[in-house]
Amino acid sequence: MINKLIDKIQKTGAPIVVGLDPMMKFVPDHIKKAAFEEKGETLDGAAEAIWLFNKEIIDKTYDLIPAVKPQIAMYEQFGIPGLAAFQKTVDYCKQKGLVVIGDIKRGDIGSTSAAYAAAHLGKVQVGSNLCAGFDEDFATVNPYLGTDGVQPFIDVCKEEKKGLFILVKTSNPSSGEFQDRLIDGKPLYEHVGEKVAAWGEQLMGDKGYSYIGAVVGATYPEQGKVLRKVMPKSFILVPGYGAQGASGKDLIHFFDDNRLGAIVNSSRGIIAAYQNEKYSQYGAFHFADASRQAVIDMITDIDQAFANAGK
Amino acid sequence: MINKLIDKIQKTGAPIVVGLDPMMKFVPDHIKKAAFEEKGETLDGAAEAIWLFNKEIIDKTYDLIPAVKPQIAMYEQFGIPGLAAFQKTVDYCKQKGLVVIGDIKRGDIGSTSAAYAAAHLGKVQVGSNLCAGFDEDFATVNPYLGTDGVQPFIDVCKEEKKGLFILVKTSNPSSGEFQDRLIDGKPLYEHVGEKVAAWGEQLMGDKGYSYIGAVVGATYPEQGKVLRKVMPKSFILVPGYGAQGASGKDLIHFFDDNRLGAIVNSSRGIIAAYQNEKYSQYGAFHFADASRQAVIDMITDIDQAFANAGK
Repeated sequence: MINKLIDKIQKTGAPIVVGLDPMMKFVPDHIKKAAFEEKGETLDGAAEAIWLFNKEIIDKTYDLIPAVKPQIAMYEQFGIPGLAAFQKTVDYCKQKGLVVIGDIKRGDIGSTSAAYAAAHLGKVQVGSNLCAGFDEDFATVNPYLGTDGVQPFIDVCKEEKKGLFILVKTSNPSSGEFQDRLIDGKPLYEHVGEKVAAWGEQLMGDKGYSYIGAVVGATYPEQGKVLRKVMPKSFILVPGYGAQGASGKDLIHFFDDNRLGAIVNSSRGIIAAYQNEKYSQYGAFHFADASRQAVIDMITDIDQAFANAGK
Repeated sequence: MINKLIDKIQKTGAPIVVGLDPMMKFVPDHIKKAAFEEKGETLDGAAEAIWLFNKEIIDKTYDLIPAVKPQIAMYEQFGIPGLAAFQKTVDYCKQKGLVVIGDIKRGDIGSTSAAYAAAHLGKVQVGSNLCAGFDEDFATVNPYLGTDGVQPFIDVCKEEKKGLFILVKTSNPSSGEFQDRLIDGKPLYEHVGEKVAAWGEQLMGDKGYSYIGAVVGATYPEQGKVLRKVMPKSFILVPGYGAQGASGKDLIHFFDDNRLGAIVNSSRGIIAAYQNEKYSQYGAFHFADASRQAVIDMITDIDQAFANAGK
């Protein structure tokens, strides 16, 4: 799957991923109205609204981008109907040829991580059948429990040719509280990065990068520079661009000299672009056109940053 | 909710929680057969099987215990039908008067943690309605992202009078890989424990314990002894008893002198008791009677350990 991701990044020239994190406040009124009329002001109605919202954004952007990253929490808050909308979104994106990164941040003791890995990347045995639960292409994983919490995910990736992005240095303001604490003179995130590099050796793709990648926030460019070297074969999923404050120039050090090695996520900056003054001319009815333009602008911003850096 | 938990522990004299973590290999053949005949060897069939399995165990144990802890991964692996069985299990346990600890180990950046908190402990606004997704009483939370990843859960707990158990020192063999690393002379888990204690001050219950508790594995009794002092007002959820190797004597230091302050989880030791030689006389048809006896034996084991320790 890392091979497919790299291939699609090279074909689109867009090392970006659209975060499909539909909060109700992003969904235009006309979509909410249609969904609520059909299914009521219920969890079913909310799930229908976010599905309709997603579908239009996917339809208007899929040809420009290699991948999407639905954040499962935004679906899980709407209970079972919300999770059904997550599944529908995953399936639809795969039909459109997109690589789907399930942003699930799961992680537990071994036998439980094995169940999560089966849920999101693998299959479960039911009687004589093998059945798939959600079936994303990549999943994000929390490393706090150590190797035996991560290994079951890696084992499923080996079997299914799927991949992981493991949390190393997250984009949020408090991420340093534990992740930056010094252990033997190095911050915890570097120790985690070293483990990610070691785990990744088990499962290398064809193009110099492992199936086992890392998450490092765009909001911490200096740390990104260090971690790029600590994990030379790990693809880095970079959240925090746009709404969280980072811009093109902050991203440069996450990439190698071939403009590979990283993929930058933007969520509300793309999916709620129509609510941004810059794209207000589109209006709520053409929200997905605003998203398309925001994707194009993001690609240009990153291109410009590459050019300025001579990459 | 911490008040209710303590009240129920005192009434039952059982500081234990039954982990409802139904793996297919635990479910007796006659239940699988019935479920598959009705719904096929599908995710729906698997979900029906684990629901029937759970229901019988709950019916045979609910009068002895204060709480249950369904591990959501074991349901999530069966996709949407599995998660519907999780919801049915949560609802049924609440009907039976049990406190439900959702073992979800979620944790993300602020806005995403807020969505998880709404999903599992709170409500979401849909049009003019407030709707609940899963509605457990407590949830487990991963602290790797720091305060701004945890605070949204605390905020929802304040509003809904619900509680958390935050991962401090997990029960698995690799937990030391990051959690034991020394920072300023103290292991990471102690730093996390100090944060849990500080977070807990925001939301105290009536009986000297906070709504914000911690997870510390029974497999690490020495660390439990230290953490009991670091977090004097935090209830400790203690996994790792039974199948993971810990026994009654390992648990003593997790408790205060009133036999409070901790609640010990056993999952397969209870729910799959009939597969244990000790309870083999019950047979697969009476699997839930074996579970009941295993609960009684666990209570006796802990009682004995209290007595030996003069507590």
